[in-house]
Amino acid sequence: MAITVVGSVAYDSIETPAGRRERCLGGAATHFSLAASFFTDVRVIAVVGEDFGPEQEAVFKKRNIDIQGIERAPGKSFFWEGSYLDNLNEAKTHITDLNVFASFEPKIPDAYRDSEFLFLANIDPVLQRRVREAMPDVKLVAGDTMNYWIKDHKPALLEVLKGLDILLINDTEAKMLAGNNNLVQAAKAVIDMGPHTLIVKHGEYGATAFFGKGSISHSAHGDFHAFRAPALPLEEVVDPTGAGDSFAGGFFGYLASQPELTPATFRRAMFYGSVMGSFAVERFGTERIQDLTRKEIDDRFILFRELTHLD
Amino acid sequence: MAITVVGSVAYDSIETPAGRRERCLGGAATHFSLAASFFTDVRVIAVVGEDFGPEQEAVFKKRNIDIQGIERAPGKSFFWEGSYLDNLNEAKTHITDLNVFASFEPKIPDAYRDSEFLFLANIDPVLQRRVREAMPDVKLVAGDTMNYWIKDHKPALLEVLKGLDILLINDTEAKMLAGNNNLVQAAKAVIDMGPHTLIVKHGEYGATAFFGKGSISHSAHGDFHAFRAPALPLEEVVDPTGAGDSFAGGFFGYLASQPELTPATFRRAMFYGSVMGSFAVERFGTERIQDLTRKEIDDRFILFRELTHLD
Repeated sequence: MAITVVGSVAYDSIETPAGRRERCLGGAATHFSLAASFFTDVRVIAVVGEDFGPEQEAVFKKRNIDIQGIERAPGKSFFWEGSYLDNLNEAKTHITDLNVFASFEPKIPDAYRDSEFLFLANIDPVLQRRVREAMPDVKLVAGDTMNYWIKDHKPALLEVLKGLDILLINDTEAKMLAGNNNLVQAAKAVIDMGPHTLIVKHGEYGATAFFGKGSISHSAHGDFHAFRAPALPLEEVVDPTGAGDSFAGGFFGYLASQPELTPATFRRAMFYGSVMGSFAVERFGTERIQDLTRKEIDDRFILFRELTHLD
Repeated sequence: MAITVVGSVAYDSIETPAGRRERCLGGAATHFSLAASFFTDVRVIAVVGEDFGPEQEAVFKKRNIDIQGIERAPGKSFFWEGSYLDNLNEAKTHITDLNVFASFEPKIPDAYRDSEFLFLANIDPVLQRRVREAMPDVKLVAGDTMNYWIKDHKPALLEVLKGLDILLINDTEAKMLAGNNNLVQAAKAVIDMGPHTLIVKHGEYGATAFFGKGSISHSAHGDFHAFRAPALPLEEVVDPTGAGDSFAGGFFGYLASQPELTPATFRRAMFYGSVMGSFAVERFGTERIQDLTRKEIDDRFILFRELTHLD
């Protein structure tokens, strides 16, 4: 089944202990759609400027990603510059130029309307809500957000949460959103805000899914409970940019590729999310994911199983 | 097979967001031996003062722990006072009174000499080494240490590492010991110092075992690789004191209880370690572990499997 994703398509200048890249293709919708494209059809809604050319288009087209919903606007594309010199787990932002994103009005192509899965990547919650409302019939909606929206745009974000099935955020964001420093208590509070499932990403320690009422795993196992997927211990993290979006793409892409949502497919989806996140950080920007094969993905899935399973 | 453990038996005054306890029974050897006692015979080498009475003895005896190696010395037992008010992951030490521990000379009772497993809990590496050398014929030796010894007693600690099969430390300690901020690179460096297996404890994110040449899992799988055990997401952490020692006790106790060391028993041992750590933090000091039943342990083992396994 097809996924429609709305989010940023951008240029990133990135510095890490492994080196520096100028204006590489980035943005949450880019990382998400490339990762998800290994599992299912993906359709992107975004806006880019006049600096988005055939070379960038080709990255999406090579992966059969539908980009008719990427609008071209006069001006420059969203630009982000950041570094991870002190801490690979947290970017230090130097420049955020919204550019054409400042006046983005998402438009949904007719050809996208039969998408059964919708992913609201990290953008202004007002825009996330607008896309959610324009696609009321989707089967499953997941979304992401960040500390900026939690801190300064909470009312708009709370409206978005009401329309989500699954929220994917990191530890700090979950605790900040709930105003609670205990992760389990925070997860329960976030689930009370709308999503029946909360996936908390722990960076190098993997991710935990918390299931509330209405979640796929709740109906099978009852009660509030959890599932943990590991991250791969890596000898070198070249660039963490897009790891979370790649996780989301692997997770949601695998779910959308399955005929039925069961607790087992959900668990496998968490592992595929971790697998895609582990590839993403191996090279700068989208370099590694652009290069990937399905066989490499499935080999690493087996490695993740060996890393965690008793037998 | 029996485990001999050398380490501290102490009194702890602890403050956490959940409350405060004065002078509860603690110390690394106490937490370790109580946790391990659910799996195998445990024999303790330590020193206590005149304040160690029948009430404390009874805690060990109830769990059939051999305490003939706990020496009584004139003076007071080791005393530690600390709090976790700001951060449940890191204790703030207010008072450390070594007392009788300052002049501790470990003596090994004859009845302990046939122990096949030896655990060197976190004490002065000079003492760890002395006990290790006095028991050259043990089958498997594991040990723990802490930032204080890594920072200020490194030469003595390096001598201990040469005699260890398995070292259990936390992320910060592993990185500090190796002088390397990447965990995998740090693990390789630590393994080069002696132990063929390094277990890095991640607190609320579980623990990772790294296997080098000579380790049980290396011989089965070849190459440097890893295994990750989760921690249980807990709604309330009452007191983290002793969680790491309880992990070590569950891990090493289970290993010692098995007829053969295989990669599968090692993996199960990691899970039992996490299980015992998860119980330890549910109440103050040793309260929860004193109260535990084997059925509770095995039920939680099943929960850990559900938390991590695909099917």
